[in-house]
Amino acid sequence: MIVGKVVGSVVSTRKNERLVGSKFMIVQPVAEMRGVGDQLVAVDNVGAGVGEFVLVALGSAARMGCDKETAPIDAAIVGIVDDDCNSFC
Amino acid sequence: MIVGKVVGSVVSTRKNERLVGSKFMIVQPVAEMRGVGDQLVAVDNVGAGVGEFVLVALGSAARMGCDKETAPIDAAIVGIVDDDCNSFC
Amino acid sequence: MIVGKVVGSVVSTRKNERLVGSKFMIVQPVAEMRGVGDQLVAVDNVGAGVGEFVLVALGSAARMGCDKETAPIDAAIVGIVDDDCNSFC
Amino acid sequence: MIVGKVVGSVVSTRKNERLVGSKFMIVQPVAEMRGVGDQLVAVDNVGAGVGEFVLVALGSAARMGCDKETAPIDAAIVGIVDDDCNSFC
Amino acid sequence: MIVGKVVGSVVSTRKNERLVGSKFMIVQPVAEMRGVGDQLVAVDNVGAGVGEFVLVALGSAARMGCDKETAPIDAAIVGIVDDDCNSFC
Repeated sequence: MIVGKVVGSVVSTRKNERLVGSKFMIVQPVAEMRGVGDQLVAVDNVGAGVGEFVLVALGSAARMGCDKETAPIDAAIVGIVDDDCNSFC
Repeated sequence: MIVGKVVGSVVSTRKNERLVGSKFMIVQPVAEMRGVGDQLVAVDNVGAGVGEFVLVALGSAARMGCDKETAPIDAAIVGIVDDDCNSFC
Repeated sequence: MIVGKVVGSVVSTRKNERLVGSKFMIVQPVAEMRGVGDQLVAVDNVGAGVGEFVLVALGSAARMGCDKETAPIDAAIVGIVDDDCNSFC
Repeated sequence: MIVGKVVGSVVSTRKNERLVGSKFMIVQPVAEMRGVGDQLVAVDNVGAGVGEFVLVALGSAARMGCDKETAPIDAAIVGIVDDDCNSFC
Repeated sequence: MIVGKVVGSVVSTRKNERLVGSKFMIVQPVAEMRGVGDQLVAVDNVGAGVGEFVLVALGSAARMGCDKETAPIDAAIVGIVDDDCNSFC
């Protein structure tokens, strides 16, 4: 997983039907974790807001534990990093 | 997922039989999302056209939700970004 | 998927038994699609020859649609790009 | 897999329910193995501590062998490199 | 898959129980195939030795064809490149 900051969202009205109801957030990995690339779009499963630092699962892991095993999702926000976590803030 | 712009297509007559009927589009990730690489070829499941900004699912996610679970596909266009989405336009 | 040019092959006599009969081709991604890396080794499922431009599926997709679901394969040539496809030629 | 050094941990109280009880460690790949990126967050399944060199499995492999097949996990510490392994120390 | 040279091994006594008996080799991808990163750790399933050029399967492919479908393995040596393969030697 990586830690990133939610910096925005993407709106898509015409999309795969299994994505209906999913919220697409733009996540910017923290500087220490740029290895997997720059910004990416992750489905939010935990109610994250812009500005929050989140834990993002990538690949098939993104479809686990959220009743979305058969949706075309390859990145998901699976946790919100605690406010008192200073290393990334 | 990543957001990219459809910049072209690829034609392949001799191909795996499970790819028959698939439309192969060339997608250029937006500048903020180059982490996953440069251009890639994605199967279009939502009717995207050249010039449109699209949401692309990568890896096993690309085979979900489109009756292509057993086709050799690792990237699919799963949504079209709304026109009023200015951040990438 | 990516588009690449077949530039050679690899011979391996001592190998996993489920790879027996597979032809290993070296593929050089086209310049626009270097994001996934430089050259890679892909199993040829469509009869591609050196010098041809091909469509390569990566990851678990490489084992789909060719009766090789349980072979240790992570890249496969799944299509040959048509000759009149000038964008990469 | 890659070898990395545990350099810290991440705390997330609001998270996917299938991640409850998981310990999230920050791993810095050794210099020879930076190819997969910089730091990443891996679930610890073997009791690793900060400062130890560990073996990290990535992708779907991270959910194997630890009764977490359905948790949104894409990286896991699956072994601790022996102290007398000088090549990385 | 990629071709790499076996340059060493990693010893881990405290590890996931499904990894017991696995031999962890350090593989350096050949210069033409650095795209997937620098050195990595791959489980050896074909009896490769230090100095040999090998074929490495990555991701879920690494668990195929060796009775290790449920072990936390993401890279495996699945073939040894023939000695008379001069392109990498």
